[in-house]
Amino acid sequence: MTSRPRWAETRLRYSFKDPSLLERALTHRSASKDNNERLEYLGDSFLSFAVARQLYERRPADAEGDLSRGRAALVKQSTLAAIGQDLGIDSIIILGQGELRSGGAQRSAILADAVEAVIGAVLLDGGPEAAEAVVALLFAQPFDELPDAAALKDAKTKLQELLQGHGLGLPVYKVDAVTGRDHEQTFDVVCEVEEKNVQTTGQGPSRRHAEQQAAAAMISVLAGELD
Amino acid sequence: MTSRPRWAETRLRYSFKDPSLLERALTHRSASKDNNERLEYLGDSFLSFAVARQLYERRPADAEGDLSRGRAALVKQSTLAAIGQDLGIDSIIILGQGELRSGGAQRSAILADAVEAVIGAVLLDGGPEAAEAVVALLFAQPFDELPDAAALKDAKTKLQELLQGHGLGLPVYKVDAVTGRDHEQTFDVVCEVEEKNVQTTGQGPSRRHAEQQAAAAMISVLAGELD
Repeated sequence: MTSRPRWAETRLRYSFKDPSLLERALTHRSASKDNNERLEYLGDSFLSFAVARQLYERRPADAEGDLSRGRAALVKQSTLAAIGQDLGIDSIIILGQGELRSGGAQRSAILADAVEAVIGAVLLDGGPEAAEAVVALLFAQPFDELPDAAALKDAKTKLQELLQGHGLGLPVYKVDAVTGRDHEQTFDVVCEVEEKNVQTTGQGPSRRHAEQQAAAAMISVLAGELD
Repeated sequence: MTSRPRWAETRLRYSFKDPSLLERALTHRSASKDNNERLEYLGDSFLSFAVARQLYERRPADAEGDLSRGRAALVKQSTLAAIGQDLGIDSIIILGQGELRSGGAQRSAILADAVEAVIGAVLLDGGPEAAEAVVALLFAQPFDELPDAAALKDAKTKLQELLQGHGLGLPVYKVDAVTGRDHEQTFDVVCEVEEKNVQTTGQGPSRRHAEQQAAAAMISVLAGELD
């Protein structure tokens, strides 16, 4: 196994002045009280900003909502975990015995958190410019592959724009039923477009999910009619 | 009325190289298509990071969750609007006729957005260090007045810790009823601590609000018994 500072030089193109910061960024809470949780918090907030700034510059025509959706797509856990996997973090992360045995080094949350913590460590060690360079390097491919603003819109936004484009009023969403207990509840939602006398339904583990489902169904129903 | 660049020098202690950035940061969407919405997005993300970094340094003993709650308390709209009011943004903001007549210059959302947009403008004009200095200046008082980590915990978190401290299981929350339509819906939630055979209820405009209410009620009920 290559040393962690050497890993950072090769993979992040960054040389740590204080290698203990890197060590901490790669220490999961299962291994030590001196773990990466605070660095992850710091790295997460810096990453959000750095991605926002890049999007601001790369997409001068995008409105605020477009930029927000773009950022959400870029910093989601699956993207971060894929970056962590790609960097080989699974072979250098420091885990407790339990996590190690149960395959924790491959868990998305652990990989994603470590990527954020490493960004936080570079920020503290080398300042914002060094950390922005690391973000630009790690996110080069996700940035290039990011869909355009129209493709990133969710079903509720698309439905609203479809209706407005045809001079129709906003859809009404209503929770119809909530079943199950606590964190296993299922929401049933009705979406109604009154001027068209159409109702669709959606179901999901949260109100938001169920509304998106109902909105997508409404778009399908209205698509033929309105286009 | 003092000029906007002069205002920035006096109140933000920052001198703009490109005064058109400041002009745009103070232009509400009711006044022009060249408005402050994109700058607000950028400033919002920078502010979140700058506050996270200050908290990280000022509160070395705080866990990740404590830092998150601290940041949420500092960057909420009412804090930002108070800062905007204090800076006299209401007298230099550029509004459309309609907003102007209806008192838009005093609206919290407009003031808060303008504060974020001004931070975004400083960032683009002078870089991250200049923007961090402005954030430190504007948030000096909110930082000093921020309650400690324990006081910032919400009712659900406090209840969970209370129960764990007494070796009891987690509370169960369940949505009991949802009444009203769309954005005027009211959620009724039940909180249950099974080992104590106690149920409390909460009501609010969202599931989250209702759960907090029910948790606060449960803390009151159990406080005498468990302490």
